[in-house]
Amino acid sequence: MHALLLIAHGSRRTASNQEVQDLARKIEAIAGSQFDSVSSAFLEIAEPDIPTGIRRCIEAGATAITIVPYFLSAGRHVAEDIPREINKAVSEHADVKINCLPHIGANPSMPDFLISGVSG
Amino acid sequence: MHALLLIAHGSRRTASNQEVQDLARKIEAIAGSQFDSVSSAFLEIAEPDIPTGIRRCIEAGATAITIVPYFLSAGRHVAEDIPREINKAVSEHADVKINCLPHIGANPSMPDFLISGVSG
Repeated sequence: MHALLLIAHGSRRTASNQEVQDLARKIEAIAGSQFDSVSSAFLEIAEPDIPTGIRRCIEAGATAITIVPYFLSAGRHVAEDIPREINKAVSEHADVKINCLPHIGANPSMPDFLISGVSG
Repeated sequence: MHALLLIAHGSRRTASNQEVQDLARKIEAIAGSQFDSVSSAFLEIAEPDIPTGIRRCIEAGATAITIVPYFLSAGRHVAEDIPREINKAVSEHADVKINCLPHIGANPSMPDFLISGVSG
């Protein structure tokens, strides 16, 4: 089983965290056979935190987890904090294939995506 | 003249702020006749700040400024801090049409954009 896990910053505003959870659900609906589940976890403030998010994927049967940092630019959180959390998880769950992709701001299609939103 | 202004959070990491400035340049390259200029400003930490970013657009000849908050979810910054800064700018530059779009995380195509980055 292959899980996709979005990692977002986390906010004190419930509506903001809910946006991320809603996005995970929408992605799950279009993921087809690519992922068996799509969920979210938060670096700070909101729950579940990253270790809990990863553990829940594994408890649900994931043998592979693809992680996408839902961040726009590679600040300290993307460059240091998230890799540190993921490295810990990798060493704790050696039997699970955990792969972290670049943050979504690094997607080379971002300029097109942004201008399409402005035009739309 | 119509300017597009991205507003990002701002980071202590220069590379992170540079990512935003690079993005603005890439968007300018594909904006065609839609925008005469594309630039960026930062809510916190980095320069230019929002009032300076708006003033520079106007000094460069902008009579209309479209602002896109380069944020993924509507936390406090998107819900309160950026609107407050923009409202101030609107009252200070009454002769310029300043329009703020939703944050990019609200783009209804975000699920497709995200899954395309995972697949790609």
